[in-house]
Amino acid sequence: MKIVGIRRTSTSPVEVADLSEDGSTVTVLAGLDDFWADAGTLIARPPAGDRLARADVELVPPVLPGARVICIGLNYLKHVAEGTFAAEGVPPYPTLFARWTRSLTVDRAPVPVPSNEPGIDWEGEVMAWVGATLTDADPDTALAAVVGYSAFNDLTARTAQKLTSQWILGKNGDRSGPLGPLVPAAEVGDLRDGLRVVTRVNGETVQDGRTDEMVYTVGDTLALISHTFTLYPGDLLATGTPSGVGYARDPQWLLHPGDVVEVEVERIGVLRNPIVGNDERRPAPPLG
Amino acid sequence: MKIVGIRRTSTSPVEVADLSEDGSTVTVLAGLDDFWADAGTLIARPPAGDRLARADVELVPPVLPGARVICIGLNYLKHVAEGTFAAEGVPPYPTLFARWTRSLTVDRAPVPVPSNEPGIDWEGEVMAWVGATLTDADPDTALAAVVGYSAFNDLTARTAQKLTSQWILGKNGDRSGPLGPLVPAAEVGDLRDGLRVVTRVNGETVQDGRTDEMVYTVGDTLALISHTFTLYPGDLLATGTPSGVGYARDPQWLLHPGDVVEVEVERIGVLRNPIVGNDERRPAPPLG
Repeated sequence: MKIVGIRRTSTSPVEVADLSEDGSTVTVLAGLDDFWADAGTLIARPPAGDRLARADVELVPPVLPGARVICIGLNYLKHVAEGTFAAEGVPPYPTLFARWTRSLTVDRAPVPVPSNEPGIDWEGEVMAWVGATLTDADPDTALAAVVGYSAFNDLTARTAQKLTSQWILGKNGDRSGPLGPLVPAAEVGDLRDGLRVVTRVNGETVQDGRTDEMVYTVGDTLALISHTFTLYPGDLLATGTPSGVGYARDPQWLLHPGDVVEVEVERIGVLRNPIVGNDERRPAPPLG
Repeated sequence: MKIVGIRRTSTSPVEVADLSEDGSTVTVLAGLDDFWADAGTLIARPPAGDRLARADVELVPPVLPGARVICIGLNYLKHVAEGTFAAEGVPPYPTLFARWTRSLTVDRAPVPVPSNEPGIDWEGEVMAWVGATLTDADPDTALAAVVGYSAFNDLTARTAQKLTSQWILGKNGDRSGPLGPLVPAAEVGDLRDGLRVVTRVNGETVQDGRTDEMVYTVGDTLALISHTFTLYPGDLLATGTPSGVGYARDPQWLLHPGDVVEVEVERIGVLRNPIVGNDERRPAPPLG
């Protein structure tokens, strides 16, 4: 299954659907709230709703507006070593930063370079989707609550990210978080198996890592978080990026309007987005 | 006006209402989405909807689930000087960190101390409410988009906040962000006038600052943000806390179950919350 969000018209509510293997149709599973109220069950059985032509619907992230998008920074050893924080070594806990759901978008959506940025940087990742409520959970319980995974590109406005000690401004640019379809956890297996994560810019490979290089696992990280705040169905965990980001290169390499960036994750799929200029930062419709 | 969110029953949608001066009734302005689609107009005229007894409704934050809660750290000079970042001086840009709307709650709501924390710390603040869409805005335009202000307590789990370089884990504890009613900007005036912000713990004053001590103004900060991401109606800006937080004291002073913390902001009102134990971290209903 490739689970996506759809709108039948620009003012319709978001529904959750299965995108067919050839990409030509979607079959509805449930409305967005109903899906997240029982995601595990709905993912486990064949979709029973309307079948629609892909061309007749708009794809949107199947994300609750109030979901948390929790991101791990510095989670692959070689990425720690290439960046600003190299001198501090591997952090003793997962370095967590925040995206708001408003920054998310979908495969194929054009991503603008914001004002005052010389370009934007790629960060290919795997996103984990939480399907249960977790309070003070242990790592095994937390991992069992993950209902699926997606390819994710944590596109970053480095100038804004590094204005101060805190990163979130540069991590929430308009449409800066393209997110691929949710692939059920049962099809993906365990990230500790070492799934290959590759990022390409205009066809050239710029990142090539494996998910078994992660310092902090999905289960450990969700368990840690759940001791401070309760996780709810629909919350998201971005698991960090391998080495090879653009700002750490010599010379620096950033994405500019006209470039195309792809993230491919083994067993999960390919996410492809063109880069556009700041003049295309038009208001996006709200989620949900 | 004191604008609040209400639910008529636990499963009703959130509506926005005006709380009467004596607190005994609420008069409905609009549903939550409709309110934020035209907040400036609805705030400027007398509420025309149902009048209900306060006792018959549940108060909730009048916040869109997908709103961004953008928080300025280190925005009062004496607070910079008392904290972990003192040696680095005043930051050259506003230090922005993120809350998700799930962490917000209302006046009187009990706030739990999460697991693994010796207590939680107070941070009395003023919250600004954005009522328009802002992309690449100048500071005057950005300030003019603010439709109101509230008292806010940025209650912080210091252990979680300081696990790594990024603060957001400790800034998103369950119900850790009590937020008072929205008071229209026309009644509050300009924060540069210097409104007094006082925090009390069990009646004892622990913070006593004025909003003209802020390093970065609301207009300047929203304008800066709007050059990286578009602000939408309903987004929130927490403007930072004065000196006097608990962790910087010698000996340290944190809030424990049984304590009561109050934030009072001149022209805006008082926000009062009791502190409870980790065992009261029960799932909260979603916003919206």
